[in-house]
Amino acid sequence: MQRYFVLPEQMKDHEVSITGEDVKHITKVMRMSIGDEIVCSNNASRTVRCTIKDISDQQVIAVIAEDIQPNTELPIAVTIAQALPKADKLEWIIQKGTELGAHIFQPFAASRSIVKWDQKKAIKKRERLEKIAKEAAEQSYRERIPYVADFISFTELLKMVQHYDRTIIAYEEVAKEQYHTYFADTLQGLTYGQRLLIIIGPEGGLSEEEVEKLQEQEAVPCSFGPRILRTETAAIYALSAISYHFELMR
Amino acid sequence: MQRYFVLPEQMKDHEVSITGEDVKHITKVMRMSIGDEIVCSNNASRTVRCTIKDISDQQVIAVIAEDIQPNTELPIAVTIAQALPKADKLEWIIQKGTELGAHIFQPFAASRSIVKWDQKKAIKKRERLEKIAKEAAEQSYRERIPYVADFISFTELLKMVQHYDRTIIAYEEVAKEQYHTYFADTLQGLTYGQRLLIIIGPEGGLSEEEVEKLQEQEAVPCSFGPRILRTETAAIYALSAISYHFELMR
Repeated sequence: MQRYFVLPEQMKDHEVSITGEDVKHITKVMRMSIGDEIVCSNNASRTVRCTIKDISDQQVIAVIAEDIQPNTELPIAVTIAQALPKADKLEWIIQKGTELGAHIFQPFAASRSIVKWDQKKAIKKRERLEKIAKEAAEQSYRERIPYVADFISFTELLKMVQHYDRTIIAYEEVAKEQYHTYFADTLQGLTYGQRLLIIIGPEGGLSEEEVEKLQEQEAVPCSFGPRILRTETAAIYALSAISYHFELMR
Repeated sequence: MQRYFVLPEQMKDHEVSITGEDVKHITKVMRMSIGDEIVCSNNASRTVRCTIKDISDQQVIAVIAEDIQPNTELPIAVTIAQALPKADKLEWIIQKGTELGAHIFQPFAASRSIVKWDQKKAIKKRERLEKIAKEAAEQSYRERIPYVADFISFTELLKMVQHYDRTIIAYEEVAKEQYHTYFADTLQGLTYGQRLLIIIGPEGGLSEEEVEKLQEQEAVPCSFGPRILRTETAAIYALSAISYHFELMR
């Protein structure tokens, strides 16, 4: 069943009002009509199955049939702190990372990031990234749209570490040195509801200095297996392994 | 250190001869010269560190300094049987799947595959996919280039199942029904060196009939978590979880 996110104020006790681009999606793309069913989520704590009652150019009104509990959120809150990668890789990381359950995406500038964002570019980029996150959240039946945070400096990233229960660094030098248990050890140390920060460098990797500064904040460099992963593959690996650990293993 | 795959006959006891496009890569892209070090693998069982001794337009000769054991292959041999997806998704699955350790890629035609391949297209496509696999294998420090198999029909896929120790089906209906332990159970039942076949449907999913026929061959429908993954994300999830299970967990 097709899913749509609405603002909390658009979801009343018995009725949902859908506005904006989703009206076009319901009427033109999905070609739905009165009586068709959809699922709506208020991106907070409520997801409902509802039936379309009224369609106009500006809004679609749907009557709530029942509250549902999709239980599609990862049991731990994962923030992917991604150093700016080249080309459209960040869009891709956000699409796939949303499917795989990420809670927050935090882009940051690493010393070896080739791509630079000025403020104008950052605002435009963020709008596009938020749209990708919303669509991927709808497609994958998420209950919440991941938050795409404002682009920050490495110094600001360092300050963030203390706000998390655990922080790991995807560090390919570790892959070469066969330190392969730290990631699993970290996951075993986390319990439901805790917050994990995963820091991923750009194409050229984090510098030794950056890794040292993060380690001073008790971030743990982790290997994601013996092969060298591209920057855009690391986030996907981590989220898949987290899902496997917390959602599939007994 | 830069890696190159060569044919077994190009790797002698004490010397490696590199030909073809890799010569251009060494001289023009990497701008290497005599005395520089590279790693070569014969795509079978031998990987060596060697020093460039001679460069001509047609070939590069390198003297073997030592044999090395990268140990970068997954401990189980995973075949990704991927129903033809839309656009360039198969290229993407092969690039990422190679980084994550897949052994064989087996494209097949599912009843709901929108894309069709004729023989001419299949040959051209396969050449391109093989090139992507080779480059991704070099970049990720693999010891072997995954094999990109010829495109087959669903009937041929059914016959393949008996040649594997275990076969699983990525099946999103299962994701909805909360059967979340089958994949971990399957991995727990596999030991080093065994062969696992993972069957992934196209955008519209496998049909009920296809799933039933596969189940008759003892293939097990598995959920990859409670969220609905796109077809191109399923292979990546499975391979990441397999790496986590066999390479990172104690």
